[in-house]
Amino acid sequence: MQIVGELINSSRKAIKAAIDEENVEEIQNIAKQQHENGADFIDVNAGTFVGKEARYMKWLISTVQGAVDTPCCIDSPDPKVVEAALELHKGTPMINSISLEKERWDALLPVVAGSDLKVIALCMSDDGMPESKDDRLSIASDLINGLVKNNVPVENIYVDPLVQPISTNDSYGMEFMNAVEAIMAEFPGVHTICGLSNISYGLPERKLLNQTFVVMAICKGLDSAIINPLDRRMVANIHAAETLAGRDEFCSNYLMAYREGKLEL
Amino acid sequence: MQIVGELINSSRKAIKAAIDEENVEEIQNIAKQQHENGADFIDVNAGTFVGKEARYMKWLISTVQGAVDTPCCIDSPDPKVVEAALELHKGTPMINSISLEKERWDALLPVVAGSDLKVIALCMSDDGMPESKDDRLSIASDLINGLVKNNVPVENIYVDPLVQPISTNDSYGMEFMNAVEAIMAEFPGVHTICGLSNISYGLPERKLLNQTFVVMAICKGLDSAIINPLDRRMVANIHAAETLAGRDEFCSNYLMAYREGKLEL
Repeated sequence: MQIVGELINSSRKAIKAAIDEENVEEIQNIAKQQHENGADFIDVNAGTFVGKEARYMKWLISTVQGAVDTPCCIDSPDPKVVEAALELHKGTPMINSISLEKERWDALLPVVAGSDLKVIALCMSDDGMPESKDDRLSIASDLINGLVKNNVPVENIYVDPLVQPISTNDSYGMEFMNAVEAIMAEFPGVHTICGLSNISYGLPERKLLNQTFVVMAICKGLDSAIINPLDRRMVANIHAAETLAGRDEFCSNYLMAYREGKLEL
Repeated sequence: MQIVGELINSSRKAIKAAIDEENVEEIQNIAKQQHENGADFIDVNAGTFVGKEARYMKWLISTVQGAVDTPCCIDSPDPKVVEAALELHKGTPMINSISLEKERWDALLPVVAGSDLKVIALCMSDDGMPESKDDRLSIASDLINGLVKNNVPVENIYVDPLVQPISTNDSYGMEFMNAVEAIMAEFPGVHTICGLSNISYGLPERKLLNQTFVVMAICKGLDSAIINPLDRRMVANIHAAETLAGRDEFCSNYLMAYREGKLEL
């Protein structure tokens, strides 16, 4: 499982304040904690700073990379912000995200074409949000084929089938999970990824739903997730689910996580 | 989800002692607690009392039924014990379990044939334990066809595909779950059920694995389980998983569980 640590996002109040104050220690601490708790990428998002996003994105990247070796996940729909970030990022980052919306596709494709960037490909088109498994598979197919044609290797593509709230439609959980299964079956080598919190929007005990949903998605083939690595139950559930899904030879990752105290709740 | 409460089993030390002492209050308390926490059936097992199993089974049933209206799940491979239990059980119990092992099949078939009993059909044959999804599906097919031919309605059959420890083979989790999916797809109306604890045999943090495995199995279609209803995380996971699997119109069961305090952990 590849984990993107989601905490450094300016939509979170404490992070917005830390960015505003250019509080290096605060941002570096959160980066370190996420790294220590298993993040393979550190998401960085300065999207709430309209007009100053590029400047703060660059500050975030140099701040995070001053603390950890973990690559960043550059979280912006704006190609200018992504390009500014790429200029100073050391190593190979992830881009979050391209989509099939024409404007976004046209703007970001030149940035990722022929590169070795990891690319999150969001199942969203100008027709709006996908509802069914088939909607998602169709958009995913266009995204993957379009990226591969532009020399993005399939194994660098992370399809996000787009989680929608179960409170708005009973079937949205299974439509998402069946899309994960279909995408993984149809495009060998591709990854699937998602943020989880949308699933529980509008319902109580959201953590329980998010922690449960990730387990179900892993059962259907999900191999990456954008999560809070400091949520111990979430991380423990992921370890357990991966082992139970047969992705952990001799249960050795599970046993290592246990020895490292990561399964104590 | 149909829940069989597993606690009244003589292989548990405290239960064995309570049976030995014919401690009505103790057994009735455990029956009531399981009922209040959502058990649809109360499993009763006196299997450790060799030679006295029928006598204690009868005592257990009249004791449990003196406290709750929930039907029992009569847990014995011995047709004499099952028949003795059926004589005094009020309402329609579940039988745990028939299997394809010739001796057990021949002995229990006359008891369940043409009845309205709920029957757990364990995927075990004289060839031993099943390993793959296909082994399980083949045994399940023989069990279901054999029972239906003997006038057991398909909706009274609860196939247990038999959980085996993930510590002995990395693929045992997925083989089980894929069997659940295949059985539910191939035999509309049938139920699938299982006990969970075997999955985590030989590994640390067994509760975490069991609680995670039930979520994955629900994702694949499992609609019944033999669990400890007093394990709050287990019950909360089941509520969340059912809602996420699209089995809870308007999330109403989830919201009711929340209002009843069942999702607080």
